[in-house]
Amino acid sequence: MTRQVHPESDIEVPPPFKGDSKISAEETRSSSGKENQKKKCNEGCSFADKVRKFPESVWTSTVKVGREDPRRVVHAFKFGVALTFVSLFYMIDDLYNALQKDAMFAVFTVVVVMEFTVGATLCKGLNRALGTVLAACLAVLIDALASSSTKILTAIIVGVSVFLVGSGATYARFIPHIKKNLDYGVVVFILTFNLVTVSSYRDDNVLRLAQSRMLNIAVGCMICLVMCLLVFPNWSGKYLQDSITSKLESLGNCIEVCVKEYFCESDLKGSEDSSIHDRISKDYKGVLDSKAAEDTLILHARWEPRYTSFHRIPWKQFGKVGDALRHFCYTVVALHGCLKSEIQAPWSIRNKCKNPCIKLTEEANKILKELSNSIKDKRQVCPHILNNGLNKALEDLNNALKSQPQLHFSHTLSARMRAQGPPLPPDSHDGQMPMPQLSKSMSKTMSVIVGLEFSEALPLAAFTSLLLDMVAKLEYVIDEVELLGRMAHFREYRSEDEFSVRTEERPKPCSELPAYGA
Amino acid sequence: MTRQVHPESDIEVPPPFKGDSKISAEETRSSSGKENQKKKCNEGCSFADKVRKFPESVWTSTVKVGREDPRRVVHAFKFGVALTFVSLFYMIDDLYNALQKDAMFAVFTVVVVMEFTVGATLCKGLNRALGTVLAACLAVLIDALASSSTKILTAIIVGVSVFLVGSGATYARFIPHIKKNLDYGVVVFILTFNLVTVSSYRDDNVLRLAQSRMLNIAVGCMICLVMCLLVFPNWSGKYLQDSITSKLESLGNCIEVCVKEYFCESDLKGSEDSSIHDRISKDYKGVLDSKAAEDTLILHARWEPRYTSFHRIPWKQFGKVGDALRHFCYTVVALHGCLKSEIQAPWSIRNKCKNPCIKLTEEANKILKELSNSIKDKRQVCPHILNNGLNKALEDLNNALKSQPQLHFSHTLSARMRAQGPPLPPDSHDGQMPMPQLSKSMSKTMSVIVGLEFSEALPLAAFTSLLLDMVAKLEYVIDEVELLGRMAHFREYRSEDEFSVRTEERPKPCSELPAYGA
Repeated sequence: MTRQVHPESDIEVPPPFKGDSKISAEETRSSSGKENQKKKCNEGCSFADKVRKFPESVWTSTVKVGREDPRRVVHAFKFGVALTFVSLFYMIDDLYNALQKDAMFAVFTVVVVMEFTVGATLCKGLNRALGTVLAACLAVLIDALASSSTKILTAIIVGVSVFLVGSGATYARFIPHIKKNLDYGVVVFILTFNLVTVSSYRDDNVLRLAQSRMLNIAVGCMICLVMCLLVFPNWSGKYLQDSITSKLESLGNCIEVCVKEYFCESDLKGSEDSSIHDRISKDYKGVLDSKAAEDTLILHARWEPRYTSFHRIPWKQFGKVGDALRHFCYTVVALHGCLKSEIQAPWSIRNKCKNPCIKLTEEANKILKELSNSIKDKRQVCPHILNNGLNKALEDLNNALKSQPQLHFSHTLSARMRAQGPPLPPDSHDGQMPMPQLSKSMSKTMSVIVGLEFSEALPLAAFTSLLLDMVAKLEYVIDEVELLGRMAHFREYRSEDEFSVRTEERPKPCSELPAYGA
Repeated sequence: MTRQVHPESDIEVPPPFKGDSKISAEETRSSSGKENQKKKCNEGCSFADKVRKFPESVWTSTVKVGREDPRRVVHAFKFGVALTFVSLFYMIDDLYNALQKDAMFAVFTVVVVMEFTVGATLCKGLNRALGTVLAACLAVLIDALASSSTKILTAIIVGVSVFLVGSGATYARFIPHIKKNLDYGVVVFILTFNLVTVSSYRDDNVLRLAQSRMLNIAVGCMICLVMCLLVFPNWSGKYLQDSITSKLESLGNCIEVCVKEYFCESDLKGSEDSSIHDRISKDYKGVLDSKAAEDTLILHARWEPRYTSFHRIPWKQFGKVGDALRHFCYTVVALHGCLKSEIQAPWSIRNKCKNPCIKLTEEANKILKELSNSIKDKRQVCPHILNNGLNKALEDLNNALKSQPQLHFSHTLSARMRAQGPPLPPDSHDGQMPMPQLSKSMSKTMSVIVGLEFSEALPLAAFTSLLLDMVAKLEYVIDEVELLGRMAHFREYRSEDEFSVRTEERPKPCSELPAYGA
């Protein structure tokens, strides 16, 4: 009856930290008094417009909802069929009698339990079944206790038990574990217990009452499950997987656009500027704000009977990949901050690092796409994912930095690293930082461009340093995806799985996934 | 009947990006085959433990839930009272007859509608009322249409209308605006329409049926509202405000701890290291993951009848403050990343910036506390909030950097800024960056320590650069809080509102707020 209003899907996404938002706040600062008047005028002016455009906007959003995801139309159709079907139990005499004239509870159950995805429906259905059975048992027990007493004593027993069960169960809903997994079950428990116990006060045959209620709820659940599982099923697990892969790809695009924009000297830049910034921030905002929706999908996916080569899919590990991605994303936000900063290194200096930096992000983008493809194809990640292009790009960046006159390596740092850090080859004494051991553990390669002498290149230094931080976090994402592959027993990587960017249609960004089940 | 399982409150918060998580992934990489065995063993070993410790852990978490927020106990009590009260309508003959023997719906309503906060209860109650009234009207209309037909035609009309209304309403739930504000109302609409229409097939007096249902739901809603509004009410708006102020304060502490830790040379550091990192990441994780809970609170707070000096509180603006804080928080995450990085500037260099950096964050912390206090006291922010300590700290940092032999300012940058940036005083030609105009617009002061020549100081440069980025974002937070103060018509700042850190008990972190209503 009460899917909670989940505000996720449509909350206005506020603009990220922008120069202009500061200006607008600055403006309002000076015009403090006029605010309300303006606001009222705006509201007044737009109200007539709104009324006139109302039918059009309703139609537009109705069509848009269906076009975004045609499965929504299918779901609405399925829901209508299930509802009509369960209504037959009410309308056809034989069925009505078979359900002991309590068919209302079957209707209830269908309306409340049937959700968009299989996992959500199973989760609700089982919660409902569990809550009903436990409550019916307890109610029968209390009735047995009360029935041997006088009318007044019965009333007291019923009243006290209603109070105690109601309070106790409500309190239990605050316990995190129950809240997360069984919240709906507890609500159904309170409801059923209450109705059966209180009804028992007027109807002597509690056992029959409890039994008919369970029967009806079972029928309702069954109809829901058949419709959900057998007719065009929507799997939470599929949505979760799509959400992770689309995040991987959109972050890949995001960093590439971001870095290319940073090094883009074009005069045309100004005009397209805001739309590019909007695109970038839309991409990363989708990732950053996805935690709650992702957690719900994981919760529901775990109820779904899906296996890969006889092993349960470790849905929780998908959550960890999501967390790693969000962590990666914080660096992307910081990179975007550099891009928008008012203080920039001059073009002459920026140009020196342009190609290697762009190469680096192109490689990072490729890696993110490879990770996404590996999840899509249910195969392990290419074992050479790191030795391939990224380390080459790091090398190039290293060389580019070395070749600049004002960027030379510091003796002190080499000495320091020798003292406490990883062993360096003997030729590191000449003041030149040795080429790093390009191993899988990339966090060591972070040391590559440490110890440069910068002047006005500081903003560029911060940018480069964030790029390296990004690479380190990318490694963490790779680790989590690799672990996912092993835990889910994905098939081994084969040489014919070429490590390349497929030119598929870009998947829907996660914000466009139906948030209905979430 | 079905508050949706909201996984917010207890989802295992994954560890932030840590060196050791990489190691563990590295380990599993080599021991791919043994994973399952180990896991099973772990599960087996812990299962006996779990069973033995089960009663204890249940008791612990039960007590903890109540101790964290005693209002939960009160709420459970209130719920029990409301439930017992509504059961009286079933048990006392006169009341039972007054409600036309349909008291079950009053019980239903209480169980489903009564929520932890006033706003959530109002939101659900009004949704339920609206859904019921509309559905009852429509059902009566359909019945009028159907009643004049033959039995078969009636069945067809009822079946078709059930299908159409069910499908249409389910589809409507996907429309973002409806999903956000009226989701529960639509579910109730489907339910009521279905029950009344289908019942009409067996019961000729639909008008009486619809009327009695509305009466019962009205009684149920009334009981909920009385209990929620008049007996120890919990306001969503209060929770929202507490959540924002506690975030402001915890972020303030977080940056101070973070920066102090960065400059802490103590040998003892290692042992306490992980607990400090945990504290820092717990603080910022609470802020980062709060979006969904905050949005729900805003949604509910908007239903609550609360005013300050006859003006509605602009709850949406609280959301904007929250967004600004999350944006601020991304920089904090990056700062924490610097702290944990394997590559660090040598102590000799770090020490040179130690005091000014610490001073800067202390000032930033003070400002965040002042913002928090201004919201708590419902007063405007101190107008000198920026001119006060922070600019002094920036000045100090500037001086400290200038006084270092290896950190001198670049001619090129000054020239560049002269060409396109803010006007500089004439004495800027001597190669010394002039002292910045310490204006309110702090983003200009970001130019203060740009253009330094760094060698092994690069990590420190990145750290300092992030600190400045943080200050710029702090300004954005200040702007949003100031705007909030004006929009909510908070009282003017008075000189007796001393701008200082109050030594109150630290408020609960937002993660500990009851997520029940959320």
